[in-house]
Amino acid sequence: MEILFGAPDRLALLLPHCDSLRWVQSSWAGVKPLIECPRRDYQLTGVKNIFGPPMTEFVLAWLLAFERRVVQRSQARSWDEAVDGHLYGKSLGVMGTGSLGSHLAAACQAVGLRVRGLNSDGRSIPNFDDCYSTASINEFADGLDYLVALLPDTPGSDRLIDAELLAQLKPGAILINGGRANVVDQGALIAALDAGQLAHAVLDVLNLEPLPDSDPLWQVPNLHITSHTAAVTIPEIIVSVFCENYRRYHGGRSLLHRIDFDKGY
Amino acid sequence: MEILFGAPDRLALLLPHCDSLRWVQSSWAGVKPLIECPRRDYQLTGVKNIFGPPMTEFVLAWLLAFERRVVQRSQARSWDEAVDGHLYGKSLGVMGTGSLGSHLAAACQAVGLRVRGLNSDGRSIPNFDDCYSTASINEFADGLDYLVALLPDTPGSDRLIDAELLAQLKPGAILINGGRANVVDQGALIAALDAGQLAHAVLDVLNLEPLPDSDPLWQVPNLHITSHTAAVTIPEIIVSVFCENYRRYHGGRSLLHRIDFDKGY
Repeated sequence: MEILFGAPDRLALLLPHCDSLRWVQSSWAGVKPLIECPRRDYQLTGVKNIFGPPMTEFVLAWLLAFERRVVQRSQARSWDEAVDGHLYGKSLGVMGTGSLGSHLAAACQAVGLRVRGLNSDGRSIPNFDDCYSTASINEFADGLDYLVALLPDTPGSDRLIDAELLAQLKPGAILINGGRANVVDQGALIAALDAGQLAHAVLDVLNLEPLPDSDPLWQVPNLHITSHTAAVTIPEIIVSVFCENYRRYHGGRSLLHRIDFDKGY
Repeated sequence: MEILFGAPDRLALLLPHCDSLRWVQSSWAGVKPLIECPRRDYQLTGVKNIFGPPMTEFVLAWLLAFERRVVQRSQARSWDEAVDGHLYGKSLGVMGTGSLGSHLAAACQAVGLRVRGLNSDGRSIPNFDDCYSTASINEFADGLDYLVALLPDTPGSDRLIDAELLAQLKPGAILINGGRANVVDQGALIAALDAGQLAHAVLDVLNLEPLPDSDPLWQVPNLHITSHTAAVTIPEIIVSVFCENYRRYHGGRSLLHRIDFDKGY
């Protein structure tokens, strides 16, 4: 066996039995089970920046579903010609302009949204119409129709989405948190939903996961909890990474996303 | 009053009272109420190709909602980590490659779908990966994950979506009709839903509109009826047409979408 391609935990079991092994392509970003094996006489490659497409689909799914009233219309039992909402021409703010935010911004521009980005210093990023620094966060949020958080869990992102920030949004705005839970002040969020300042909120991430059935959050009207499934792994993307590396391997070229065993990434 | 901008039925009432009128921008594609007025001493402009963005939002809203299980998740009362579906890498067929289909195809490629088009002679169209002629319709449909119909009502489009065509799709496919009702063989559609060959169907258009509450179609499982609201008029698009023409008007340039009073379009 010269090449292995699969999930690190399973491949780790095969490693001792592959005599002529030269290359292992992991299907996960985390390769700890392989790093922990003593064997290191092969090239190990991972996957990077693969969560842009599923995160984009997650955000668009919920924004479009709210605007088009998919839940109500899917259960309709009677003709309803009421005009639905739309994304085109609306404004969306993305907290976090890394690979996830940048992929989302490109797709949002393609459907006619105006896209603002928030990052540490307000530097310009491709696909964003404007970028703001965290020091200008209220200006960033001013009048937004939609706010999407894709921030990592750092002390700097703690409770950035608080009552003051939510009050800057357009009344009836929609909030989606696909990043980490610490960014949301949960009490302020519930108050904003209750007051109608937010029409809907979607939380993919929570301080306690899995959230117990008994948690009162499940009962908050217009709050939707997606159980940490926003950035699912899409098999077609992993396969395309493998195919590109397979071409490179056979062409004698250097492989993408090579892992350094000592660093572990 | 030199310039009027609005809905033709209301503007028709104002026409006799505007002494210095030079230009009327209609906010509708249909300008019959203005054509029927005797007054013709002004430039009349309309709107064209404005339904691509709302039709694209309509199709993406439903495909993403099914894949992400938005209806179930929006009503969830308990943690659900089951992996949802995705669009990336899947195949979508569009019947009709005009301005609607072409706009849809561009957005679908942007989210990683492979997009096939169907038109009379199979000519290539930008934004489509491949195009097929109506003579090769079974090849067009072969193994599609999603089928979207955006065809006008012509004898040639009558019941193109029949049992034979539906059988070509991937089992569990999704059908969306945003065009005209005549293209769907309703009996074959219901049979395909019943057999699971179609997981879902969305019909925006029906042979009888509005569909009476008593119609058994409302009760067909996994059939969703959107009451002819797919291609809503988006005010932001109409305003952008007016703004472009306003700049042209003040620059002394020719206006877009000018209507010929004698032809009526």
